Amino acid sequence: MAGNTFGTLFKLTTFGESHGKAIGGIIDGFPAGISLDLEAVQNDLNRRRPGQSKIVTQRKEPDQVEFLSGIFENTSTGTPIGFVIQNADQRSKDYSHIKDVYRPSHADFTYQEKYGIRDYRGGGRSSARETACRVVAGSLARQMLNELSIHAYTSSVGEIALVKSYQELDLNLIESNMVRCPDPETASKMIEKIEAIKKEGDTIGGIISCVIQNVPVGLGEPVFDKLHAELGKAMLSINAVKGFEYGSGFKGTKMRGSAHNDSFNEDGTTSTNLSGGIQGGISNGMDIYFKVAFKPVATIMRKQDTINEKGESTEIKGKGRHDPCVVPRAVPIVEAMAALVMADFYLLNKISKQ
Amino acid sequence: MAGNTFGTLFKLTTFGESHGKAIGGIIDGFPAGISLDLEAVQNDLNRRRPGQSKIVTQRKEPDQVEFLSGIFENTSTGTPIGFVIQNADQRSKDYSHIKDVYRPSHADFTYQEKYGIRDYRGGGRSSARETACRVVAGSLARQMLNELSIHAYTSSVGEIALVKSYQELDLNLIESNMVRCPDPETASKMIEKIEAIKKEGDTIGGIISCVIQNVPVGLGEPVFDKLHAELGKAMLSINAVKGFEYGSGFKGTKMRGSAHNDSFNEDGTTSTNLSGGIQGGISNGMDIYFKVAFKPVATIMRKQDTINEKGESTEIKGKGRHDPCVVPRAVPIVEAMAALVMADFYLLNKISKQ
Amino acid sequence: MAGNTFGTLFKLTTFGESHGKAIGGIIDGFPAGISLDLEAVQNDLNRRRPGQSKIVTQRKEPDQVEFLSGIFENTSTGTPIGFVIQNADQRSKDYSHIKDVYRPSHADFTYQEKYGIRDYRGGGRSSARETACRVVAGSLARQMLNELSIHAYTSSVGEIALVKSYQELDLNLIESNMVRCPDPETASKMIEKIEAIKKEGDTIGGIISCVIQNVPVGLGEPVFDKLHAELGKAMLSINAVKGFEYGSGFKGTKMRGSAHNDSFNEDGTTSTNLSGGIQGGISNGMDIYFKVAFKPVATIMRKQDTINEKGESTEIKGKGRHDPCVVPRAVPIVEAMAALVMADFYLLNKISKQ
Amino acid sequence: MAGNTFGTLFKLTTFGESHGKAIGGIIDGFPAGISLDLEAVQNDLNRRRPGQSKIVTQRKEPDQVEFLSGIFENTSTGTPIGFVIQNADQRSKDYSHIKDVYRPSHADFTYQEKYGIRDYRGGGRSSARETACRVVAGSLARQMLNELSIHAYTSSVGEIALVKSYQELDLNLIESNMVRCPDPETASKMIEKIEAIKKEGDTIGGIISCVIQNVPVGLGEPVFDKLHAELGKAMLSINAVKGFEYGSGFKGTKMRGSAHNDSFNEDGTTSTNLSGGIQGGISNGMDIYFKVAFKPVATIMRKQDTINEKGESTEIKGKGRHDPCVVPRAVPIVEAMAALVMADFYLLNKISKQ
Repeated sequence: MAGNTFGTLFKLTTFGESHGKAIGGIIDGFPAGISLDLEAVQNDLNRRRPGQSKIVTQRKEPDQVEFLSGIFENTSTGTPIGFVIQNADQRSKDYSHIKDVYRPSHADFTYQEKYGIRDYRGGGRSSARETACRVVAGSLARQMLNELSIHAYTSSVGEIALVKSYQELDLNLIESNMVRCPDPETASKMIEKIEAIKKEGDTIGGIISCVIQNVPVGLGEPVFDKLHAELGKAMLSINAVKGFEYGSGFKGTKMRGSAHNDSFNEDGTTSTNLSGGIQGGISNGMDIYFKVAFKPVATIMRKQDTINEKGESTEIKGKGRHDPCVVPRAVPIVEAMAALVMADFYLLNKISKQ
Repeated sequence: MAGNTFGTLFKLTTFGESHGKAIGGIIDGFPAGISLDLEAVQNDLNRRRPGQSKIVTQRKEPDQVEFLSGIFENTSTGTPIGFVIQNADQRSKDYSHIKDVYRPSHADFTYQEKYGIRDYRGGGRSSARETACRVVAGSLARQMLNELSIHAYTSSVGEIALVKSYQELDLNLIESNMVRCPDPETASKMIEKIEAIKKEGDTIGGIISCVIQNVPVGLGEPVFDKLHAELGKAMLSINAVKGFEYGSGFKGTKMRGSAHNDSFNEDGTTSTNLSGGIQGGISNGMDIYFKVAFKPVATIMRKQDTINEKGESTEIKGKGRHDPCVVPRAVPIVEAMAALVMADFYLLNKISKQ
Repeated sequence: MAGNTFGTLFKLTTFGESHGKAIGGIIDGFPAGISLDLEAVQNDLNRRRPGQSKIVTQRKEPDQVEFLSGIFENTSTGTPIGFVIQNADQRSKDYSHIKDVYRPSHADFTYQEKYGIRDYRGGGRSSARETACRVVAGSLARQMLNELSIHAYTSSVGEIALVKSYQELDLNLIESNMVRCPDPETASKMIEKIEAIKKEGDTIGGIISCVIQNVPVGLGEPVFDKLHAELGKAMLSINAVKGFEYGSGFKGTKMRGSAHNDSFNEDGTTSTNLSGGIQGGISNGMDIYFKVAFKPVATIMRKQDTINEKGESTEIKGKGRHDPCVVPRAVPIVEAMAALVMADFYLLNKISKQ
Repeated sequence: MAGNTFGTLFKLTTFGESHGKAIGGIIDGFPAGISLDLEAVQNDLNRRRPGQSKIVTQRKEPDQVEFLSGIFENTSTGTPIGFVIQNADQRSKDYSHIKDVYRPSHADFTYQEKYGIRDYRGGGRSSARETACRVVAGSLARQMLNELSIHAYTSSVGEIALVKSYQELDLNLIESNMVRCPDPETASKMIEKIEAIKKEGDTIGGIISCVIQNVPVGLGEPVFDKLHAELGKAMLSINAVKGFEYGSGFKGTKMRGSAHNDSFNEDGTTSTNLSGGIQGGISNGMDIYFKVAFKPVATIMRKQDTINEKGESTEIKGKGRHDPCVVPRAVPIVEAMAALVMADFYLLNKISKQ
C-alpha cells in the first residue's frame, strides 16, 4: 500500500531506483489471448530514452526491456507480465557530490525525512527513470486497446505556445521533430528556445496536450473514480507535473452555462465538445483532450545555495547530463499513463451491466 | 470496485441517489479513541446545504446527518462509522419532464449508455447531492487531523478574480459573506455577478483556492500516489470540476529552473514555495496550496435543443431551483476532499519507517 | 482498510454494532439491469433471524431490511446498493452486568486491548448480528448468479453426524426441519441433542456442509486468490468458525496420488471428484463441496470464572437469550458467503481473456 | 486484480512461470530502516529448494535470489523491493509429452478453459515453483517481526501422525531431519514411508502444523479480515492444500461451551488455549497454532488414463523428477505465508487507535 501500484484491474506495480541494479514491473490483470508486438514496446521506450537528440539529456541508457513472464509465443497468457530494464549507468560516480546535500526542489529532503534513509546516489526512487516502466506497460495497454488512438504532443515550451487546436494539426507530424510538436514552425522555435536555455545552464517548463480518439461510450466509474479524475491523478503522478485540465479547463470557469453546454446531435454526438469527451465522469464517445503542465527541471548547471543533512548552508551545482526541458521526453509518458487509465476502465466497463 | 470508495486506509464508501430514500456512507479505518464533535459535522453540512442564501439553489433539504455506528459516548471506537442523510425532497415531481430526455452536458446520456437504465427522476447518482456524504466524512477527518488547518475560498466567479495571494488575505473572513470570498470588496462583485446571471436564467463558472497549513513533513507515497496526485484526483472527482493546479501550476511552465527552484533555509523550510508544499509527491512542511476550476452549472432556466432516448430532437428548459454558480456551496466540499486525502496519508505515513 | 469490506469487484462493506441504532451495508459493483426479488432477500434474512424456532435464541429482532439506493423499479441500476436493518433490541439492559467484565472466549478482551475502547453493551462489532448484512448481500448475489445452486446444511451437532454424502441426500429437505439437516432421522437426534444441551445451560458445536452446483468452468484467480482460498477466508470470517476443508479435505492427506487423482471423462468432467470441483484454484465445472467447523457458542448459562478490565478475578453468568448451538442459524450465512465469493469471481472471470 | 498480490499494506506481487525465464516479485510497503540479513533469505530458500534430500524432487534449480531495489547498504529504504530468481531448468524438454494432454488433478484443463491459452511446458503459473517468491518475501517479513517466532513442521505423512502436541516437542529439532518432523522417531517412519511410496511411483499427502509464539495482542481486523481468516486464505493459497483448522479446529465442534471456553488468568492470559490465540479474529497474545492439510502430489510415475485438448482419451505417465510427498518442502512455505499475514496485520495495527 505504499503507492507503487497503478490501476484496479489492469494493475501495474513498479520497482527500482535510478542507481540500483535494475528497474522493472509487473502487470497483473492483462487479459489472455492478445497478440503482442514487443518491438513496438521497445520503440515506445526509445521515444523516452536519454540521448535521443541534442535537446535532451546525453546520459547513456540503452533502456532495453526484457520480458520474464506472462507472454508465450507472442501472446498474452493472462498471467502476470514481469519485466526488467537494467540500469547501465548505475556505477556512475556523478552523484557523489550530492551524498548529504539536499538539491533544491528535488525530493532529497522529503525522502530523507519520510524514510530516515535514502539512496544518495541520485534521485533513487524519485527519479523520472521510473517512468520507463510506465512506458512499457502503457505500450502493452495500447495494444489491448488497438481501436483507440492516443496522441500527446508538446504544446508549449516556456512562453512559446502552439495556438492551433488539435483539430487544426496533423498529429502524424508529432514524431517529425525532436521536440514533438506537430506544428513544424512552432517546433523550430521551441527547439531554439531549449538550446538557448541549455547554453545558459538553465531549464524551462512546458505543456503537453493529449487527445484520445475513438473512445467507446461508458468508460469511467462513479463517483470517485471518474474518468477525468483518474486521468488527472495519472498525469499528476508523472515527475514535474504541476497541473491538469481537460475540456474547457480553467478557461471554462469564465463561461456561462448557455455557451458551455454541448448540444446533442440526433446520433448522440455533441455539436461542440467543451465537456472534453466526458460527462458525469463517463466517456460520451467524443474526443477526450487535456493539458498537462510541467515545471522547469530542478537540476540546473549553475551554483545554487542549499543545505546539507545537518542543516548547514552549502552550495551545489548540477553535474553531468540533464534535460534542459522535460517535455519532449515526457510525451510518450503522458501517452502511456493515458493508456493505462483507459485500459483499466475498459476492463471495468465489461462488468457494468448484466 | 465500481468507484464509490475513496481512500486506502481512511476509506469512505458512499451510496445514494438524489431522489432515492436517503444517501449515506461508511467510513472504515477511522482510528479509535478520538473525541468527536458531531455538531461541528452538522455545521459543515449546513455550509453545503441548499437554501442557505439567495445566490444558491432554493431547494429544501434539511441535510440532517444521523450516525448509526462506530461512535460510542462521543468517541470513535475503531469500528466503521455508518451514517445516513434522508432525502426530504425525494417525492418531488419536478423532474418528470426529463424522464426520457438527455439534458445537455449532464450525465443522463452517459449513465443510460453505460448501465442501460437510470433513475430518471433527477441526477440520480450523478447528482452533486452525493457530495453531502463527503462533507460528513471530511469533517470527521479534520477532527482527526486537528493540528492541520484547511481553508478553501472562492477566488473567481466568471471574470471576477481575486488577485491577492492567500498570504495577503484574512482567511477568517471566508465565512463572512455568502460567496465565501475572504476579500469583502471582491465578494460583493461576485455576488452581484451571480445575481445578474441568475436573473438571466443562466449560470457561471468559477475557481476555488485551497490552502493547507501546518502540515507535517512526509505525507504522500511514491510513485503513483503522490500527495498532489491524490489531491488532484480528489478535486477532479467533485461534480463540475475541469482542472486542478498546485504550487506554481500552469504559470510555472513559463518559468526557468533558476527562478522556480525553492532554496532551503537552514531549518529545512524554503525561502520561496513554488513547489506548493510538496516535493517528489511528499509534503515538505510548507503550505500546500492549489486551485480547482469549476465549469458553469449545466442546468439553465432557458430553452435548449436536445434529444430524447430515441435520438429524436426535442427541447428542454430547466425547472425549479438550481444553483446559478456552484462555487459558493463547493467550498466546504473542496475542504472535505482535502481532509480525506490528508487523513489517508497521515495514517499511511505511520508505517513508512520502523 | 480496517477489514469491513469483502470482495474485489462485487464488494460488500458493512457497519453496525449489536446495540447501536442499526446495522447495514453498501454493495458496490452490482451490475445494472438485474431484476431483483426483494422478498426473497427478506426470506433469507428470516432463515437467520432469532426466535425462529425453539432451538435458537429467543431474542426479538424483526430483522427487516430497508433498501435505500441502487434499485429502481425492482431492477439494479449499477449504482451502490445501500441498506439498513434497525436494531429493535438496542435499548435492552441485558448486558449491563458485563460492562467491565471480559467474557471467556469472547472478543471483549481483544477489542478492548486493540482499540482502548469498546461498546460494552454487548458483542458490539464482534457480535454475529453483523452477519445479517452478509445474508442480505449474499441473497442479492444469488439472484445475480441464478444458474448456480448453493445449498448448505447441518452435517453434525456435537458427536451426532450425518454419514451420508450430499449425493445421497435430498437437499430439498434442508428447510423441512429446524436444525436444517436434510436427513430427517439425523435431524431429530440433533434437535434432541440441542434441547438437552440447552436445558443444561450449555452449548455445543457442529459442522455445516455446503455444495455449489452448476458452476461454470474458470472461476478463481491465480495464485493467491484461488477459489478455495477465498471460500476458506469467507467461511473463516464467520463468527465461531474454527476450520474449513474442501474436496477430500483432511482425509485426503492419508491418500495416495494414484487413488486421489480424478480421471477425466471425454467431456472434460471427471469420474471422481476428490478435487472438490476446483483444480489449481479454478473451478472445473464439477460440484464444489466443503465443510465448515463451528465451535460451541461461548455464552453459557452457567457461572464462569473470569476477570474484569482491571485484571481482577470475578464471576460471570450468561443472561438472556442465546443460541445453544449456532449451526442452524449459520446455514444461511454459509450460503451467503459462498454466494459472495462466487459472484466476485464470476465478474472477475469476465475479463480473463480478450 | 488478477490475484497475484497478497496483503494490504505489506504487499507481495509475484510473477513467473515454471518454464519461463525467471520468477520474481515486488514487495511494496516494507518499512524503511530495517537491517536485513540477505543470507538468511537465501537459507530459507534453500530449505524449499529441489534436490535438498533424497525424499524430494531431484530437479536442479539453484534458486538464487537477486535483489534489484529497495535495499541500500543492507537496510530497507521504504521503496519497493524487487527481486528475481532465474529458472535454470527452463530449457528442459521433459514436458513435451504433455503439450496437449490434461494431467489428472493438475490445473492444465482449468487454465486452458479460463484463458484459452497456456504455457504447455509444465505447470506454468500453476506450478509450485511460484512459492519460492513467497519464501523470499516471508523471510524478509520475519526479519521485520523479529520478536515473533514462527515454526512449522510435518505432523503427518499419510497415516503416520505425530501424536504429541507442539508443547511436548523440541521445535529446534525440526531441521534435524529431512522430513522436518521434530520427533526423531516419527520422522524416521515418515521418511521410510515416503521412500517406499516413491519406489512404487506413487505419492502421499500429509499435514503441516504451525505455531506462532510471542504474538502481540491486537493483530487482526474485524470483521472480514479476521486474523485466522487471512491465515486460512494464506495457507489455502499454497499448492495442494485441502484444509485449514486452528485452535480446537474440527475437534472443537464436538465439544461443549463449558469445556471449550478458555478462562482468563489475572494477567489476561488464558489457562487453556482452545481459541488458538485468536478471539473475535484478533490475537490475544497466546500461542497461535493451526494445521494445514496437503493432498498427495498429482504427478505420479504411473500410467494414467486422461484426455487431450480435443477431448480424446489418451494415456499419460509422469516423467522426470517429482516430489513423492510435498510436505517436507512445504514447511518453509507455510512459515513464509504465516509471516506475510502477521507482517500485514502488524502494520495495520499501528493505526488502530489514536
